[in-house]
Amino acid sequence: MNKIKIGVITASDRASKGIYEDISGVAIQDTMKEYLKSDFEIVYRCIADEQSLLEETMKELCDDESCCLVVTTGGTGPAFRDVTPEATENVCDKMMPGFGELMRQVSLQYVPTAILSRQSAGIRGKSLIINLPGKPKSIRECLDAVFPAVPYCIDLIEGPYIETNEDVIKAFRPKVK
Amino acid sequence: MNKIKIGVITASDRASKGIYEDISGVAIQDTMKEYLKSDFEIVYRCIADEQSLLEETMKELCDDESCCLVVTTGGTGPAFRDVTPEATENVCDKMMPGFGELMRQVSLQYVPTAILSRQSAGIRGKSLIINLPGKPKSIRECLDAVFPAVPYCIDLIEGPYIETNEDVIKAFRPKVK
Amino acid sequence: MNKIKIGVITASDRASKGIYEDISGVAIQDTMKEYLKSDFEIVYRCIADEQSLLEETMKELCDDESCCLVVTTGGTGPAFRDVTPEATENVCDKMMPGFGELMRQVSLQYVPTAILSRQSAGIRGKSLIINLPGKPKSIRECLDAVFPAVPYCIDLIEGPYIETNEDVIKAFRPKVK
Repeated sequence: MNKIKIGVITASDRASKGIYEDISGVAIQDTMKEYLKSDFEIVYRCIADEQSLLEETMKELCDDESCCLVVTTGGTGPAFRDVTPEATENVCDKMMPGFGELMRQVSLQYVPTAILSRQSAGIRGKSLIINLPGKPKSIRECLDAVFPAVPYCIDLIEGPYIETNEDVIKAFRPKVK
Repeated sequence: MNKIKIGVITASDRASKGIYEDISGVAIQDTMKEYLKSDFEIVYRCIADEQSLLEETMKELCDDESCCLVVTTGGTGPAFRDVTPEATENVCDKMMPGFGELMRQVSLQYVPTAILSRQSAGIRGKSLIINLPGKPKSIRECLDAVFPAVPYCIDLIEGPYIETNEDVIKAFRPKVK
Repeated sequence: MNKIKIGVITASDRASKGIYEDISGVAIQDTMKEYLKSDFEIVYRCIADEQSLLEETMKELCDDESCCLVVTTGGTGPAFRDVTPEATENVCDKMMPGFGELMRQVSLQYVPTAILSRQSAGIRGKSLIINLPGKPKSIRECLDAVFPAVPYCIDLIEGPYIETNEDVIKAFRPKVK
């Protein structure tokens, strides 16, 4: 069977050195467990905010691990070490501007600094890569907003059929193609 | 006189082979007839989802046919054969991100998968190119949202003066330049 | 002490030739005086809509003058001579799409032609560059929308600590980093 694999990449200089616990990466994994009715496997990496390392890791999870979905957390701000969107753009075949737009719009309801988040999304081969913010609370707000479109997106790039727990999150698939 | 020419490009592997009728291209032409009070001529092309062919066709309609407006339908999703936004970006001198943002925002009121639409717009010489989605219903929703800004945009790029049927769609032109 | 310097660049063929007064540049300076409680100095340039000149001037204000914030006005439309966003993208290390998105969204409440504004923002070294529209009324609307996020953004790129007059505009800084 076509096993569903989901990649989770935490970009954090401090978490990757063990200075603090990667609560953001854990938050994403917990959210996926709540969302998905289909069986799936998490492929997890916690790495430093190095653009080349981020690119290599995204490629590995997309190409070698065949993750249909790769979500990143961290590195989307304006600071010098924040390079996750640049890494994402470099490895993707096509960008999906609607994800970043919607996530910023949702976060703006909570904080005016949401516009500082440069998060994006894109397609690499048969994988969808989505950048999420760094804070667990914002991660969940953003995922709740964009995830209804994720299973259909993965259908369109010929990935596995993903079913969600409809009482938690409702995937939307148009009736006719 | 400066005749108004509007290009319509349908990007669809199946419609271009005659497997099904191009109802999207027809929907755009019908909408233009409803919108415009000024006389105009449609230059219509229905082609396969090939990026180089899309680019050539956009160039032909802008440069040789002197269309002040070129609207495309199809090829804006995340699938492998969806390359209309990339073709548009390649032929344009400047991109107009506000069009895609507004169209996605409007479509989001109907379906959460609106964020999968990568449609954009841009300027090539004295032509405005706008990507529309593939479905007739979404085409009309998107055109209703962005068209009020189109005649003034065409003024600014030195195109012909376009008048609309104000009971159908109201063009907006700022009082003072 | 780390003096706060704010760059103001007016891109206008006509204002730079003295054909008319640069009321937009003045409007930005007046707004900054209202907004900021911290002492600051304005570095002002009024130049023609030439992309290379715009890029040189942005570099000068960021690198030589050490402005933590550079705001531009003009040159963000679709016309041939409108090249401020392209100049901004060329000199920036990273782009901040959230600024343009929010400014267009705010302006859309007033005029449907807001989607024609291609304004953006980005980071060059330790400077934040923000493009504003050309009209004084729109300048204030846009600044009111994005400025609450500006002081924290400048914190993150290691610039000076900016305090605002809270009765005019409230800067937002998240409690914990």
